[in-house]
Amino acid sequence: MKNFTSINDVNNVQDLLQKALEIKQNPFGYKSFGENKTLGLIFLNPSLRTRLSSQKAGQNLGMNVMVMNMGQEGWQLELEDGSIMDSGAQEHIKDAAAVISQYCDIIGVRSFATLKDREFDYKEEFFNKFIGGANVPLISLESATLHPLQSFADLITIEEQKKVKRPKVVLTWAPHPKALPQAVANSFAQWMSKADVDLTITHPVGYELSEEFTNGVEISHNHDEALKNADFVYAKNWSSYSNYGLVSNDNSDWQITKEKMSLTNNGKFMHCLPIRRNVVASDEVLDSPNSLILEQANNRTFAAQTILLEMLRNEK
Amino acid sequence: MKNFTSINDVNNVQDLLQKALEIKQNPFGYKSFGENKTLGLIFLNPSLRTRLSSQKAGQNLGMNVMVMNMGQEGWQLELEDGSIMDSGAQEHIKDAAAVISQYCDIIGVRSFATLKDREFDYKEEFFNKFIGGANVPLISLESATLHPLQSFADLITIEEQKKVKRPKVVLTWAPHPKALPQAVANSFAQWMSKADVDLTITHPVGYELSEEFTNGVEISHNHDEALKNADFVYAKNWSSYSNYGLVSNDNSDWQITKEKMSLTNNGKFMHCLPIRRNVVASDEVLDSPNSLILEQANNRTFAAQTILLEMLRNEK
Amino acid sequence: MKNFTSINDVNNVQDLLQKALEIKQNPFGYKSFGENKTLGLIFLNPSLRTRLSSQKAGQNLGMNVMVMNMGQEGWQLELEDGSIMDSGAQEHIKDAAAVISQYCDIIGVRSFATLKDREFDYKEEFFNKFIGGANVPLISLESATLHPLQSFADLITIEEQKKVKRPKVVLTWAPHPKALPQAVANSFAQWMSKADVDLTITHPVGYELSEEFTNGVEISHNHDEALKNADFVYAKNWSSYSNYGLVSNDNSDWQITKEKMSLTNNGKFMHCLPIRRNVVASDEVLDSPNSLILEQANNRTFAAQTILLEMLRNEK
Repeated sequence: MKNFTSINDVNNVQDLLQKALEIKQNPFGYKSFGENKTLGLIFLNPSLRTRLSSQKAGQNLGMNVMVMNMGQEGWQLELEDGSIMDSGAQEHIKDAAAVISQYCDIIGVRSFATLKDREFDYKEEFFNKFIGGANVPLISLESATLHPLQSFADLITIEEQKKVKRPKVVLTWAPHPKALPQAVANSFAQWMSKADVDLTITHPVGYELSEEFTNGVEISHNHDEALKNADFVYAKNWSSYSNYGLVSNDNSDWQITKEKMSLTNNGKFMHCLPIRRNVVASDEVLDSPNSLILEQANNRTFAAQTILLEMLRNEK
Repeated sequence: MKNFTSINDVNNVQDLLQKALEIKQNPFGYKSFGENKTLGLIFLNPSLRTRLSSQKAGQNLGMNVMVMNMGQEGWQLELEDGSIMDSGAQEHIKDAAAVISQYCDIIGVRSFATLKDREFDYKEEFFNKFIGGANVPLISLESATLHPLQSFADLITIEEQKKVKRPKVVLTWAPHPKALPQAVANSFAQWMSKADVDLTITHPVGYELSEEFTNGVEISHNHDEALKNADFVYAKNWSSYSNYGLVSNDNSDWQITKEKMSLTNNGKFMHCLPIRRNVVASDEVLDSPNSLILEQANNRTFAAQTILLEMLRNEK
Repeated sequence: MKNFTSINDVNNVQDLLQKALEIKQNPFGYKSFGENKTLGLIFLNPSLRTRLSSQKAGQNLGMNVMVMNMGQEGWQLELEDGSIMDSGAQEHIKDAAAVISQYCDIIGVRSFATLKDREFDYKEEFFNKFIGGANVPLISLESATLHPLQSFADLITIEEQKKVKRPKVVLTWAPHPKALPQAVANSFAQWMSKADVDLTITHPVGYELSEEFTNGVEISHNHDEALKNADFVYAKNWSSYSNYGLVSNDNSDWQITKEKMSLTNNGKFMHCLPIRRNVVASDEVLDSPNSLILEQANNRTFAAQTILLEMLRNEK
């Protein structure tokens, strides 16, 4: 695996999933692979789960981990090629990427969507330019349009929790006071399309995701209908793709409540966190035995560790 | 030891003290206990000594240590149960605590007093809610009302430096330009009450500490009288408890000077640092051979290491 | 080596250079030296290369590394001796230095020039006061007037890349939109003066460096003349020393372009990074095979590792 920025970097999803389950059983069994190897984690945005789970994953493998908050601790990055850098950014992204590659064997990077320039975001300009400058494998810690470590952890969680061979999984839009990226939703759709599940996406009109990620998926604007018989309900807010980065109205009736969950097949509730309680989903749902939010967070470590181990194995 | 948030979590203070002295003699003798264990240090406020000594303590025990500045690097926390989180905080404290527990075997947390809402502070709402959500042992790196690692380090320092079996220890209020929490003073009073010392607390009228921590302790408003024959003078500013969080006047005559120290029994000077020189205490006092401020700072490592080792031993 | 704040702390530059080349061949061959040793890296200013390369260097030697951003995470420092600290800074630099010394075996510190008070900067007040308080060896991660780890890495790079025994090295002032310190230029001049090279410094009138560092060096205001037959062109902006911290005009014709490089002896291009592309030097120059900017960045690790190893060897 050269880089890990989407499921398209994975040869065989089922194999990867089995490796993750195996690593979870024996998290310290691969410490020799990371010996004298350094993982750099570069954050351009806040992070709790990703930061700690990735650092933990590297340490479980015996790696040294260096964490850096690019904006606060380093320099502002220029993204434009050929730019005359006489104001603003102090360092070009291709130089930063090449330099960090000198010190790290694997680099993890988080850079959120701007939510202002759809073309820039959906071309993954930041990540592509970083990768263009980097000389070592790169792992996405969430890019403008995707969050593959989250989706991989979600897949692990579904695999562990499913009671039928091919469960019904519903990705449902949920209310939120702020405009959020589509990354988690896009990525989840992309991973579920390659998993042994029946995926339905449900959202209010106007919140259609990019067809690039939802091609062939059943999409419904009828919330209650979509939730019917669901084995897993994955709630997530996202802002509009068509009316890019905007939020039309609060749609508070899309909150996942106990009543909504009662439409499901005793369905499990999932969310990537952080979650705004009693907005996205009610306390009753989040604190019920059917809530998998902590299992998902826990599996972030093993998702990251599996990808890191693949990369370390490549090198050997 | 499930958690360490005050001396009340300690079964036997004398035993703990002896263990600390033993660890100080052999700081790397317990590295196997921390193998494959992770310490998370979560800061909601600035820190120098606590940050570095706790990280050092974990590393001395062979632990992996992950440090996180919650406010800058992560998400803003909601504390209210049942809150509809449609503005402000992005993550509920109980979710953050539970998630961090997935990645850490022990969590250290620092969260200062608000100094605005006494009931909130003195109920230790933040810590209690964090503990409520956490699934692993928690160590206080200073809470709203207590700073037990500091007090434990102070106890170690007094034990090492005392020349009589039962020294006279004076905790004295000292001037400061800003309103500060009562945590260090409360905690010191609490620990000294269980130590083999004679404790006197002295402060201007209006700076009475909560009786919860000073019950049975001799309290004097006569500074010179209180300092007489002291073996240890522990200086610290705190804002008013009764007139909560306020500072009435500068009381600059309460500064610990050479003249004040001359009233003592060739007394040792103590302070938890950081200290505003020539406000809290004069340079002459701080730079004299009787100053123990660096010994106290050094013992922070061994206080933290002793608590961590207790928790690691519990797990085995 | 007690401290490393300039080349004056080095006994034998050639010996040090040979050690660095040897370490680069075998970066993990000295891991026993750092066992149970702690490196503290204290930043008062942003950093990318220095931060990551120093952390990497410590880890290569088996050290524990603790990184701290003093301003954001810790306390504001008072520098004045005898000051009555009743406003502003919360902790005196001598106390902070002494405290950090309790937790670290070696301390690295970065504190840039103020560019406002030349006497303060050129007396290295910050570093001298920090060293005055510290009880363990200190490494400069860039001080007000010098950046010795950068210059050492530059020397390693020149040694590796030179094609003649005594190459012509040109340090050239380059344009920049902001006023920058003289540290990199001063330090480079100081190191090159002790290396087996012919050094020429070229800059517009008004950008004379302090004679302390350029004594005996050939200085030219004729850019093209100076670049003639250069084997290495080291570009760097600095603000005025005489008109302290100021920038007179943009001198954009001093940018290093392909045309300027064509005057050289197929010269190699060097810069310490971060670099403002197409201001300091053109993309053509930076992306040409003659550009050594990444080699320099890479050698930062081995420069730091060599100094750390010297200090660890002293201790043994």
